[in-house]
Amino acid sequence: MAEVNHQIRLAARPVGLPKESDWERAETPIPGPGPGEVLIKIHYLSVDPAMRGWMNDRPSYVPPVGIGEVMRALTVGEVIASNNKGFPPGEFVAGIQGVQEYALSDGTDLMKADLALAPAPAWLNTLGIAGLTAYCGLIEVGQPKAGETVVVSGAAGSVGAHAGQIARIKGCRVVGIAGGTEKCAYLTDELGFDAAVDYKTQPIGAGLGQACPDGIDVFFDNVGGEILDAALARINPFGRLALCGAISQYNLTDKPYGVRNAILLVPRRARMQGFIYFDYRAEWPAMLEDLATWRADGRISVRDDIVEGGVQAFPETLLRLFRGENFGKLMIKVAD
Amino acid sequence: MAEVNHQIRLAARPVGLPKESDWERAETPIPGPGPGEVLIKIHYLSVDPAMRGWMNDRPSYVPPVGIGEVMRALTVGEVIASNNKGFPPGEFVAGIQGVQEYALSDGTDLMKADLALAPAPAWLNTLGIAGLTAYCGLIEVGQPKAGETVVVSGAAGSVGAHAGQIARIKGCRVVGIAGGTEKCAYLTDELGFDAAVDYKTQPIGAGLGQACPDGIDVFFDNVGGEILDAALARINPFGRLALCGAISQYNLTDKPYGVRNAILLVPRRARMQGFIYFDYRAEWPAMLEDLATWRADGRISVRDDIVEGGVQAFPETLLRLFRGENFGKLMIKVAD
Repeated sequence: MAEVNHQIRLAARPVGLPKESDWERAETPIPGPGPGEVLIKIHYLSVDPAMRGWMNDRPSYVPPVGIGEVMRALTVGEVIASNNKGFPPGEFVAGIQGVQEYALSDGTDLMKADLALAPAPAWLNTLGIAGLTAYCGLIEVGQPKAGETVVVSGAAGSVGAHAGQIARIKGCRVVGIAGGTEKCAYLTDELGFDAAVDYKTQPIGAGLGQACPDGIDVFFDNVGGEILDAALARINPFGRLALCGAISQYNLTDKPYGVRNAILLVPRRARMQGFIYFDYRAEWPAMLEDLATWRADGRISVRDDIVEGGVQAFPETLLRLFRGENFGKLMIKVAD
Repeated sequence: MAEVNHQIRLAARPVGLPKESDWERAETPIPGPGPGEVLIKIHYLSVDPAMRGWMNDRPSYVPPVGIGEVMRALTVGEVIASNNKGFPPGEFVAGIQGVQEYALSDGTDLMKADLALAPAPAWLNTLGIAGLTAYCGLIEVGQPKAGETVVVSGAAGSVGAHAGQIARIKGCRVVGIAGGTEKCAYLTDELGFDAAVDYKTQPIGAGLGQACPDGIDVFFDNVGGEILDAALARINPFGRLALCGAISQYNLTDKPYGVRNAILLVPRRARMQGFIYFDYRAEWPAMLEDLATWRADGRISVRDDIVEGGVQAFPETLLRLFRGENFGKLMIKVAD
């Protein structure tokens, strides 16, 4: 093949928000699959807050992206050449193929993406990282019971929107925290949240107090910092705080925010627990069945926020996440 | 009966450390038991960090002690008059009879304290609040596995000393944090801790780093604040932080310390959970069997720090706790 594979590689470790010079825009030949390998043409790539953590040179749940390496990203694409019987040409697959147009895989990290069940972007949204992350955190960590109050931060984001809707399906009263009247209206009017708190127009503590007269039983947190602290202040006895992420803290150049109300975990006998959806891989098939059902019957409704422009749009698109500008699952369309 | 019942009552809500004017030294007639009631002559009362929380006018796991009420305290004493067949005269009982010399009870909050099994002070120590709190927090919340590294703060205190020794019994590597060389030597030389970190003579982060080359799997926290933050920095993937208390924070007049490393709970998939031993009442009998066995066979060794002077010694004795001056379970001897 004579075509070129455009890639976005990590050129430097960012300090604070990633800037253009932290990236290298590279071109390489499209590789051919070796024994057992497949060549994937990437159609969509997922833009996620977790990417910021992957860029730091710190041990974490996955190794840091190396300098000069293709930036790690979840992708969905089509197998266009295959030496692997498990994944014949023409099949769509979800995986972690990175910010590039073509990628090789030995198949171990691939999941079949059945386009008859849902279109390609859904495999990065409800049937991918967003839906699975929400499911793992809400159900496995948060363990909500019908009638409880569940609060979700970053609720208009892809994970938050799923977490809130799953909590509704489980019979909970659901309150979302989001920035701006448009996002808050979306939560209550389109997604069926019981209430929304706009952190941009009211002090978060007062807003939560008003929206949660019976306190908070489960807090699903995507934001961290002050919002986590305000939720802790209102956590009920035996409450659960499922920590999914802390987008407010990822680009700080100073120390992270100090959570003062962590001390309340003792008298409230509350539990605050971090999670990563990768750890629940064994349960994914059952979770995906539920998610596919809820998606099909309309109980889960989502937005795809799809950016055109291919891999070259990645550096700027990532910044949109940290500015809170995305509305729904942020993805980049790489190919048709 | 003509004798007087001396009591220490709460006179005012303390700001910061409790002072003499926050207490009322009262005398009342010794009451006679009504139908179903027993009269208890208190022999020992337990002086615990949790008392500081009970003095605040904030909803918590127990109601605040009211102004003018006898200060709440765990006690062990003898039934000296009884209208309750469950508790005949001469029987020793542990309960929550408060800082006074005599108390009535309807029996619902009483536990028999078998002096043939252990002397009276043990029912406030290994077979009481200290042993049970350590057992609940370490085993039920911390869930240590053999070979893991368990770190205990306030390790020379009564709860900490139990938590560390139970962790040893469970086959863990145990590191204690305490203030001063005498306490640290006690941990390693007398209690069999594998290492001790003296927070008074070295930065806590460096000390923990050195003592825990393989990180921390379970952190049993009695101290909170900076020490909790330093432990979080070293918590291993899937680590557990059992929050028992935060003695460093109880007498602050300013805001509590902000825990900056709470953000690490996400990538480490760690769990931080508060607990109160009252919640495990159903499991106490089985726990007490273990504790009595370990006490009898010497695998749990403890110190009683018994203050003479009766209930009048209470206000000053409570302050010893917050100055870190106690060495072992702090109790006041009220009667022989």
